[in-house]
Amino acid sequence: MRGAELLRSAPVVVYDALVNPELLRLAPKSAEIIFGGRRANESTDNRGQIVELLIARARTGKTVVRLKGGDPYLFGRGGEEAEQLHDAGIPFEVVPGVSAFAAVPNYAGVPLTHRDHCSQLTILTGHEDPDALDSRVDWAAEARRPGTKVIMMGTERIGQIAATLMRHGLAPDTPVAMISWGTTGRQQSIAGTLAEIGDLAIRANLPAPSVTVIGDVVKLRKKLNWFENRPLFGQRIVVTRAREQAAELINSIFPISYRLGDVGDLDRTVPFEILH
Amino acid sequence: MRGAELLRSAPVVVYDALVNPELLRLAPKSAEIIFGGRRANESTDNRGQIVELLIARARTGKTVVRLKGGDPYLFGRGGEEAEQLHDAGIPFEVVPGVSAFAAVPNYAGVPLTHRDHCSQLTILTGHEDPDALDSRVDWAAEARRPGTKVIMMGTERIGQIAATLMRHGLAPDTPVAMISWGTTGRQQSIAGTLAEIGDLAIRANLPAPSVTVIGDVVKLRKKLNWFENRPLFGQRIVVTRAREQAAELINSIFPISYRLGDVGDLDRTVPFEILH
Repeated sequence: MRGAELLRSAPVVVYDALVNPELLRLAPKSAEIIFGGRRANESTDNRGQIVELLIARARTGKTVVRLKGGDPYLFGRGGEEAEQLHDAGIPFEVVPGVSAFAAVPNYAGVPLTHRDHCSQLTILTGHEDPDALDSRVDWAAEARRPGTKVIMMGTERIGQIAATLMRHGLAPDTPVAMISWGTTGRQQSIAGTLAEIGDLAIRANLPAPSVTVIGDVVKLRKKLNWFENRPLFGQRIVVTRAREQAAELINSIFPISYRLGDVGDLDRTVPFEILH
Repeated sequence: MRGAELLRSAPVVVYDALVNPELLRLAPKSAEIIFGGRRANESTDNRGQIVELLIARARTGKTVVRLKGGDPYLFGRGGEEAEQLHDAGIPFEVVPGVSAFAAVPNYAGVPLTHRDHCSQLTILTGHEDPDALDSRVDWAAEARRPGTKVIMMGTERIGQIAATLMRHGLAPDTPVAMISWGTTGRQQSIAGTLAEIGDLAIRANLPAPSVTVIGDVVKLRKKLNWFENRPLFGQRIVVTRAREQAAELINSIFPISYRLGDVGDLDRTVPFEILH
């Protein structure tokens, strides 16, 4: 809510690639909206330029909203950007967000902690080669730890990560869930054992980005998968009404509450909306 | 924002002890507002009764909002409650939230991940005696792991936890920050080394609840402590205006953006508000 409050009065918004486009609608019509993420075809890191831009706009006296997906301090590189703002003498506020590592498993029916299943939680990035000698994650130690593990990203490496964990002693029948494009209308999830997850991911052709959960909490998915079991899940619904009325109409038909979903890459000139 | 949307039309709200009372204002005036947390003087767990209440209200055809602080699936026991709803045949949606484990360190200037300092993150509860033989946390293994550690709760045990970690090899000069009542107007934080944190906590008489961060990211606090360094931090400001105008007035005086803070236990009949 604090983020929405700041967006609603933002003269400048610099947003990242995985930000829900719905959020940009909150900014004033007059706002300068700048894409500040890395495009898929760019191999160089433009982060330095983005921070320069934030500083330059701030020095003209404007309040800049730097909009990131999830939480800026959880694998979001917000710390690095904030440090540079401090060094440049620009005052800032950091609004915490809902991180994908928690929201995405929830939307696939997996609570990260559960009295019967774990009292600790580890969050790792799956970016690196798990067999690299200089890997910053000690996979051998991870394999021996109890509790839930969440791996952010690393979609295409999951088979290799699973093999590494099994080689270091994690039971091959440990439950695993992988969720692609979680919380959106195109969410896709798979579940299986550590031994089979690599093959399942290849067979499902699961697209990045994804979040992987390893641990007994995955078993709760059968009972708690409220999102994917909804009647309209994954459907595109054309509503020939003003945007504001669409959710209302759908909610009058179904006895559960829907919200406007993200509109993805669809043609925005046609007066329809997708609901999920 | 989804949470706010649901609260605004909720006929029934059942809230927990650490929920920001500001949020209850979002509910309709006609809503039935029920405290569903455990009171400090109650030694018995009333969770069973609370779920019974949720089921009973839902069966009368009403949509019930079960409002928890932070994220319901991160040490919030939301998984247990959702499981019981499933078993009773009550459909539900779980809205992810901003967990204290991420928000509180941010408000004390500590980003949980940082390129230079860590690529993994562990979240633990500090409820249990770290020396208990049946402790569900393997403190010896934790001591040897790299990366940031976040300990939820356990305010009064921090000296004992630090001693256990040092005994198992964690360096006594590892930076530690402890934050009490984080993100609120009464936030209080201390920082030091693992060797001294127990004494510092006793000397500061740090009240529960708290969040503790252990790791090199604590060093960034000097640069990133945006919240506690604000001009009005921790002050109580009397604004003899309607609630809606108070933030606007303060924001016209100071060049940074304030929001209405929580009103704590103060007398609500007097027309003033605290801002932080």
